Amino acid sequence: MSVNAEYESFHVYDTTLRDGTQQEGLSLAVADKLAIARHLDALGVGFIEGGWPGAVPKDTEFFRRARTELDLKHAQLAAFGATRRAGAKAADDPQVAALRESGAPIVTLVAKSHVRHVELALRTTLSENLAMIRDTVAHLRAEGRRVFLDAEHFFDGYRADAAYALECLRAAAEAGADVVVLCDTNGGMLPAQLADIVHEVREATAARIGIHTHDDASCAVANALAAVDAGATHVQGTANGYGERSGNANLFSVVANLQLKLGREVVPPAGLAEMTRIAHAVSEVTNLAPNPQQPYVGVSAFAHKAGLHASAVRVDPDLYQHIDPKLVGNDMRMLVSEMAGRASVELKGRELGFDLSADPATLSRVTNRVKELEAVGYSFEAADASFELLLRGELGTPARFFDVLSWRSFAEQLADGAIVNQATVKVRVKGEEVLAAGEGNGPVNALDNALRAALAAAYPALAGLELVDYKVRILTGDHGTASRTRVLIITSDGGAEWSTVGVGENVIAASWQALVDAVTYGLLAKGETIL
Amino acid sequence: MSVNAEYESFHVYDTTLRDGTQQEGLSLAVADKLAIARHLDALGVGFIEGGWPGAVPKDTEFFRRARTELDLKHAQLAAFGATRRAGAKAADDPQVAALRESGAPIVTLVAKSHVRHVELALRTTLSENLAMIRDTVAHLRAEGRRVFLDAEHFFDGYRADAAYALECLRAAAEAGADVVVLCDTNGGMLPAQLADIVHEVREATAARIGIHTHDDASCAVANALAAVDAGATHVQGTANGYGERSGNANLFSVVANLQLKLGREVVPPAGLAEMTRIAHAVSEVTNLAPNPQQPYVGVSAFAHKAGLHASAVRVDPDLYQHIDPKLVGNDMRMLVSEMAGRASVELKGRELGFDLSADPATLSRVTNRVKELEAVGYSFEAADASFELLLRGELGTPARFFDVLSWRSFAEQLADGAIVNQATVKVRVKGEEVLAAGEGNGPVNALDNALRAALAAAYPALAGLELVDYKVRILTGDHGTASRTRVLIITSDGGAEWSTVGVGENVIAASWQALVDAVTYGLLAKGETIL
Repeated sequence: MSVNAEYESFHVYDTTLRDGTQQEGLSLAVADKLAIARHLDALGVGFIEGGWPGAVPKDTEFFRRARTELDLKHAQLAAFGATRRAGAKAADDPQVAALRESGAPIVTLVAKSHVRHVELALRTTLSENLAMIRDTVAHLRAEGRRVFLDAEHFFDGYRADAAYALECLRAAAEAGADVVVLCDTNGGMLPAQLADIVHEVREATAARIGIHTHDDASCAVANALAAVDAGATHVQGTANGYGERSGNANLFSVVANLQLKLGREVVPPAGLAEMTRIAHAVSEVTNLAPNPQQPYVGVSAFAHKAGLHASAVRVDPDLYQHIDPKLVGNDMRMLVSEMAGRASVELKGRELGFDLSADPATLSRVTNRVKELEAVGYSFEAADASFELLLRGELGTPARFFDVLSWRSFAEQLADGAIVNQATVKVRVKGEEVLAAGEGNGPVNALDNALRAALAAAYPALAGLELVDYKVRILTGDHGTASRTRVLIITSDGGAEWSTVGVGENVIAASWQALVDAVTYGLLAKGETIL
Repeated sequence: MSVNAEYESFHVYDTTLRDGTQQEGLSLAVADKLAIARHLDALGVGFIEGGWPGAVPKDTEFFRRARTELDLKHAQLAAFGATRRAGAKAADDPQVAALRESGAPIVTLVAKSHVRHVELALRTTLSENLAMIRDTVAHLRAEGRRVFLDAEHFFDGYRADAAYALECLRAAAEAGADVVVLCDTNGGMLPAQLADIVHEVREATAARIGIHTHDDASCAVANALAAVDAGATHVQGTANGYGERSGNANLFSVVANLQLKLGREVVPPAGLAEMTRIAHAVSEVTNLAPNPQQPYVGVSAFAHKAGLHASAVRVDPDLYQHIDPKLVGNDMRMLVSEMAGRASVELKGRELGFDLSADPATLSRVTNRVKELEAVGYSFEAADASFELLLRGELGTPARFFDVLSWRSFAEQLADGAIVNQATVKVRVKGEEVLAAGEGNGPVNALDNALRAALAAAYPALAGLELVDYKVRILTGDHGTASRTRVLIITSDGGAEWSTVGVGENVIAASWQALVDAVTYGLLAKGETIL
């Protein structure tokens, strides 16, 4: 386990693997946790809280496997746990033993600092709670662990009884805790109020101060920054803002704000430049769709749609961007949409390698075609590959590698109870008619496999393609017209990814269009000769 | 158009219908815009910016239809547009004429206040830009309109040339603009920096100050609050934070923070108590899935998962909530999950009307069964109806209304090119075997229709059921195991909604489980007799 002294003056402390997993719908296997830890280490965070060994069996296992399976270059692991039980000794408490035995060099202890929580939730006396803090911190320090203290519900506690809340911090610091972390556990603080309390704590104690915030008032990131401004030098947050209720402070936004706007180098710049990739890699592991709007790292974070902007962005991109997206590994994108008009289509064409500026007639034709298709439900904003195929068609050089003659898909429950999806597809390719079958875990997957089986002999390169994401949107009809379905498909060849769109009154029909575009674009990208 | 003088001292200004529609993937028909305006009026915002008449045909139409189709009780409509073109007269500018003719009592003019934007994007002189502001504001005032001025890129402009940025504000105020709105157009400001500039503007001009922020640094809401703290009395934002890139300031969070945490009554309390319903109603219209984590109004915003919390929540809910969720029309929820354990299952049971506290053996059995099922991919957090059916099964009173004998689903392209999905289902119900067929816009829809056709004679009440949402999640296998699919279905009977879950290696198989649960729960809710 390496220690990176360079970043010790300011702690970037990640709690994705512990507090982040409290998010509704988020559940991580041990292998997932190890994978996320590696991604966070690549970003360059200083501390990774791995979980609660002894309380959650998966977390005990995480720390056990981390010893041999993690080779962290930058981060240190922290084990999270509670102070000892009331009336016991820390040295005899099995939960405390599990923290010691985790092998983590740092233990982050959660302690109550709110008088009502001590009395109603912990059901012990105020003085015993202080003893629990002192005893547990001192014991772990004596055992050679570094100790951070999470003061749970600190801000509410401070409002209820400031003297007692401060007493909890002093007890921890005097017993040897390195950092006392002020937690806005229910997420209800606003920045100005929170900053006032952090200032008061700074005056009342010499302890190093940390901050842990939640987004219940849409202010988690701003609250973390307000605390740093007031003197905190340890910030906790989670990847992509995962967490219970409205989530924790999004560590990616916190880090980018500190580093790019406030001039504090809190992670290595090379790590920051990987942040967009890392944010998406983490969401692959959590299996939660990335938020396209996520600040800094979302696919829409630097995407421009307004026609007003699109024409001016050509003049000077920096007029419309708050930072250079490359600093966080993101990129500017122009969106093709009904609102954007010719300027956007021209810019988008240029992005794809087609100069339309010298050909206003084609530019108008493409713009009109996009508008027509968007009027019936297509969306090219998120389907670059379908847009490029459309553009090639309008330029008189359509990409066509095969003709579809017919297809059929069916699902049924077999006699043994098993359920199968199968499909047949008939195509004409390189002069021959080919009929092929496929099966899959759903009708679209079966059709995809059948189509690729039919083309496999003519185009062996298709074997490397994989459908990596599939989205369906039901478009409600305006005033009684039939509803339509839009399907977006993302395909990968292991390296590049591309997205295609299909629309129809039927989900299978829409999917089929998007599949044909996906395979056609894949063949184009492989440099296959057009029919 | 009513004027609500009571809320004139603080302007809540919604720009969902204009700036919100800049969001990637968001496109609204005129009927959608009218529907959203009605929802915002029910919340009690003071101003609704309807769009840009003259520039966007749909927006011209919106204002035309609004005159007869909107009966706003609280809000006034604002038309958005630009200052006149360089070198022309406002009175002769067709775009300005479109603003006049929109019939909106308020015109919000966007103007450049950043020297480089004037020179590079607008391509005119600094003095002509000031003349454009003065002339357009004065002309609209003379025509009897109230005028607000959006100073685009104000904060960057102030940093580039503070004197000129202030000159733009003064030009507008002197010509009769009621509010000068400082816009952080690219969303890059942090609260402390933004507050400093708002303070300086307050000292430099007597104009009423508004604030318009974006979330590119995760600080849109905090920035709006910081500006209010510095003296702004007009806040712009959008429903659910819709907007370009990372979105605009979420007006729902801004309003709730101002009203519940800062003691300013900016909307009627009865409107605030409808906020959760309204947020979801708006997302129905935009057809964008609501963000479950959205502060205040998300379904997860007051949901508790941690076992630690669940046991204490029983003691006193206020210890764990930053506000009473009823104030914004939301509700506390306990989540049943692998992390929660017995306390959560007991609370959840109580929520559903089952007291398990007196029966620890059943409580253990249900908890273990939930854990087993979650381990193979089920998630009961978002599937209350499936959880209740499971609970009834474990209590020895399973809800069973029919037996499934077989089913089959198929899709194919017909000779005329049309694509159909059909399904057959065979059930035993009330002693009879029934075979029925159905078709639909996809295989699951076809199966749903076939199942309900098969049960229609025995249970006529099923006719009122509708599948309102359908979600598929591919669960990646851990180290080479086959991937599994989880399907969540939401069903409505016109009033109540319930959600069910199915898991399988096949999307159709998983869907079928969720469908059977959905129909079973519907029959239970209708009070049908269990077999």
